[in-house]
Amino acid sequence: MINPINRNIFGNPQSILRIIPLGGIGNVTKNLYVYEYRSRPDNISDILIVDCGVGFPDEAMYGIDLVIPDITYLRDKINKIRGIILTHGHEDHIGALPYILPVLNVPVYGTLLTAKLAEVKLQDSGLQVKVNVINENIPLKIGPFSVEFIHVTHSIPDAANLFIKTPVGNFYHGSDFKFDWTPIDGKKTEVDKIARAGKEGITCLLSDCVRVETEGYTLSEKIIEETLDKEIRNCPGKFIFTTQSSNISRIQQAIDVSIRNNRKIVFLGRSIERNVGVAYRLKYVNYSEMFVVRDKDIRKYKDSELSLIVTGSQAQPNSALSRIAEGIHKFVRIKEGDVVVFSADPIPGYENAVHTLIDLLTVNGARVAYSEIQDQLHVSGHGARNDLALMIGLTQASNLLPIGGTYRQMRHYSQMAFDMGYKHNQVLLPLEGEIIEFSASGQVRIAEKLSLKNVMIDGLGVGDIGNVVLRDRQTMASEGIVIVVVPLDKSSGRVTAEPDIISRGFIYMKESVDLIDEAKKVIIKSLRLKKGRITDWQFVRKQVEKNLEGFLFKETHRRPLILAVVVHV
Amino acid sequence: MINPINRNIFGNPQSILRIIPLGGIGNVTKNLYVYEYRSRPDNISDILIVDCGVGFPDEAMYGIDLVIPDITYLRDKINKIRGIILTHGHEDHIGALPYILPVLNVPVYGTLLTAKLAEVKLQDSGLQVKVNVINENIPLKIGPFSVEFIHVTHSIPDAANLFIKTPVGNFYHGSDFKFDWTPIDGKKTEVDKIARAGKEGITCLLSDCVRVETEGYTLSEKIIEETLDKEIRNCPGKFIFTTQSSNISRIQQAIDVSIRNNRKIVFLGRSIERNVGVAYRLKYVNYSEMFVVRDKDIRKYKDSELSLIVTGSQAQPNSALSRIAEGIHKFVRIKEGDVVVFSADPIPGYENAVHTLIDLLTVNGARVAYSEIQDQLHVSGHGARNDLALMIGLTQASNLLPIGGTYRQMRHYSQMAFDMGYKHNQVLLPLEGEIIEFSASGQVRIAEKLSLKNVMIDGLGVGDIGNVVLRDRQTMASEGIVIVVVPLDKSSGRVTAEPDIISRGFIYMKESVDLIDEAKKVIIKSLRLKKGRITDWQFVRKQVEKNLEGFLFKETHRRPLILAVVVHV
Repeated sequence: MINPINRNIFGNPQSILRIIPLGGIGNVTKNLYVYEYRSRPDNISDILIVDCGVGFPDEAMYGIDLVIPDITYLRDKINKIRGIILTHGHEDHIGALPYILPVLNVPVYGTLLTAKLAEVKLQDSGLQVKVNVINENIPLKIGPFSVEFIHVTHSIPDAANLFIKTPVGNFYHGSDFKFDWTPIDGKKTEVDKIARAGKEGITCLLSDCVRVETEGYTLSEKIIEETLDKEIRNCPGKFIFTTQSSNISRIQQAIDVSIRNNRKIVFLGRSIERNVGVAYRLKYVNYSEMFVVRDKDIRKYKDSELSLIVTGSQAQPNSALSRIAEGIHKFVRIKEGDVVVFSADPIPGYENAVHTLIDLLTVNGARVAYSEIQDQLHVSGHGARNDLALMIGLTQASNLLPIGGTYRQMRHYSQMAFDMGYKHNQVLLPLEGEIIEFSASGQVRIAEKLSLKNVMIDGLGVGDIGNVVLRDRQTMASEGIVIVVVPLDKSSGRVTAEPDIISRGFIYMKESVDLIDEAKKVIIKSLRLKKGRITDWQFVRKQVEKNLEGFLFKETHRRPLILAVVVHV
Repeated sequence: MINPINRNIFGNPQSILRIIPLGGIGNVTKNLYVYEYRSRPDNISDILIVDCGVGFPDEAMYGIDLVIPDITYLRDKINKIRGIILTHGHEDHIGALPYILPVLNVPVYGTLLTAKLAEVKLQDSGLQVKVNVINENIPLKIGPFSVEFIHVTHSIPDAANLFIKTPVGNFYHGSDFKFDWTPIDGKKTEVDKIARAGKEGITCLLSDCVRVETEGYTLSEKIIEETLDKEIRNCPGKFIFTTQSSNISRIQQAIDVSIRNNRKIVFLGRSIERNVGVAYRLKYVNYSEMFVVRDKDIRKYKDSELSLIVTGSQAQPNSALSRIAEGIHKFVRIKEGDVVVFSADPIPGYENAVHTLIDLLTVNGARVAYSEIQDQLHVSGHGARNDLALMIGLTQASNLLPIGGTYRQMRHYSQMAFDMGYKHNQVLLPLEGEIIEFSASGQVRIAEKLSLKNVMIDGLGVGDIGNVVLRDRQTMASEGIVIVVVPLDKSSGRVTAEPDIISRGFIYMKESVDLIDEAKKVIIKSLRLKKGRITDWQFVRKQVEKNLEGFLFKETHRRPLILAVVVHV
């Protein structure tokens, strides 16, 4: 069943190809894969990058907006990078471009919709960059690499897998895909091309693995339409539909169902308006303008004539749906009779926020339909276990590398591969930062391990938040801060007045006068340890902080961040 | 089908009964229900309290350990309170006793296991209180109330529903239940008693509703045993089992399966050791001591001879399982071949923490089985839609009041009731704080609305964290704090030296010298607004804070908490 390693019979036997995942290993998002060709083991010749996505902060990353891949490894190799290939237009595959492209400054390639979504994304950050639209029928030659785009079905149109030929062997880059035989846009996964690539011999299949734990095949996008039809027919008031704003096919279905039921469509929320705008101009979304109503014209229609397609399926603060639920939207109020349809699963970590939003909509009178309790209101864009097995069957790759999933899912993927006859050494389960090296002679090994850090975006800052800042945020979040101000005479080095205590997020100061008085005594005692002129202020400061911490913990069982400030006067 | 309102034919027609949920409405936890009897509308005669549980903080309640019901309403009525009845031993039904009982100081009642678990809980807080064990065969007379305990199946033994007779009518308090026909302890839900109560006439059924969105009946606890058997037989190394530490029946099953497969049992983690200890002494858990091994003796056995029953199914920091996964447990390390079984669903909000823990266990070599991907590894203790319908059918109550669920679930419950023939005015959907009043003449209405607040527990503090402190924590969590220290001459009122800027959780100060220098200029400019002697320091302080906030937002797009401190010298 399984091909022998595809040997490099023409090239030199010393050459190697290294796959360096700078994101996307042990992780569903933040996808960035480096394909590095070396003509000799010590000579980096050419680098190709696949995808450039953002990740989302975990709960401990207080205040962080986004996480991007750590490209430290690439910094001294920029002149070897031949380009960035984008597989599709989702944030976790294109979202880091505004931060990383200005550093690398290399050509970017993608299918038509992907390229345009990336360009709009870059424009939002003030970057005017042309993204190259590839020709699906001719492999892209880029350095020593040849890249064929193979169309796959996913939850966004124009998604592709990549068949990458290198001097060391052929690789199949199987990022996000499923086998949807009745896709909304009619464009099925090009199984014939995948099979042909398999026939040519594939050294390694990199495969999406996030849904490996779900048996069977992922259902077609098509089945949702019937559910939507039923919901809209049972809606006496406004029909309010929300999904991920990148889910163009889903939005198309909501549009079709609305028009069929004689409702006008209103798009609400920046990212939906933007994505639908791009997709409409490129004809990836189709409707007649006469059915679209602007937000300020909503009042001209009866509730039963309206269908709102809105942002906020993850209960993002300030999204259209959140504002509608909170009763602060400029044009829309929830009324008894309205139906709200969530056609998206909550992203892990957002479950509570989504449930709170659903509750608020319910209290205000809406009937809410959401995928957790109702089948066929959302289907995943990712293949389930059998989709993944089918991909292995089509590619017949010599080695397998599950990507875009947690370590738990990678492990489940490997179990599936073993059941299909793969040997342990054919399934690669690298840890984050590990580099996989393929030699022309057919060897595969973990070559080295990079130490990757989380590059965090906070406001305008890229990577300026590190672990110290985060740790302080965590402490202040759960315990608050107590600031002690000690005035110190500049010339004599003596404490000139009683220290002052200020706190935030710790306790109601006004109701805790006794505690604060006692704390002051602790501080004064700590200051007395060194009589007379204080020269080693650092030492005393540490003493004050330590003693105050001990005292406050004893009294309150809380450990606020303590900050002693000396003011030289 | 539905009984007419059960009229109070003996008592006076002026009497009323008010149900005041101080927790548990629109909320799964924090259960505390007040039954208040008034012989005349303006005369509170007697109060009975059912349950006294804790709630769990939501994501915005940074640093808060627990939330307890707000008993402000009861404070001036303590001499009317006849007692607290506990339905079962779960935290969300007994956990607030240590905080509330010392205030109310009234008798507490429960079944044997519930009473002992409550006593242990109180002892942990240094309170020596005897909880009265009720007699299941004789209704408890308490003031004008008569309370019959009806045994129900749930995820803890000795759980009860209450049939409460009052001078105004009969009430069925149907807190957490399911109809498990093959419970581990053999004690089925007493459907005969429920039906008899129904026959006597029930004015209102208060019913658990949290699983109303799931069709059918909740499966029996029994089915899990087969799954556990399969897992333990496929485990070449240590078998590690985790569930909620209160889930005594589940722990019994893990014990049985372990003994049957010739493994020694080790209990790890304080709450499991404590709960199993109480249950073992009362014979709610049964095993022979010879199968139990202490943690320090683990090394005497081969991995394949061990079964560890551990705390940490919700990935609580410092729980036994978290410490094992992190490699810092004193006696246990994860090895290839170990199997870890999660027999509990993640509590909403803890999903990510649980997934991270599973990933860590997997990376360390364990195979992890958990209920999200494997059927029959966990069943809920709560009844699904048909269980809830059956309860309505048995009680045939005149009115329905869904409790212990979110508003969304209450609404689904009402839909189910309408489908069963109930009228809109028979299903009560109060908002949090609303008081439901039943009159002897058969009227039901929302009488008034209390303004309930979240009473938050943080360390040793009860209710000393309010919204201001929380808001500061939220700001510091996401944006950090910037402190400006301005030395001011006490006698002249002049600024004596350059202001100093200190920050925590905001930015790396050392790498942001330019920003800090610019910020100082902004501060100095703000101080100059008032030339010479500064008398209205409050005004200047606000100016400094406002200008600095504007400057920092412009430069960084972050809004740290800004605190200007004046030091009088």
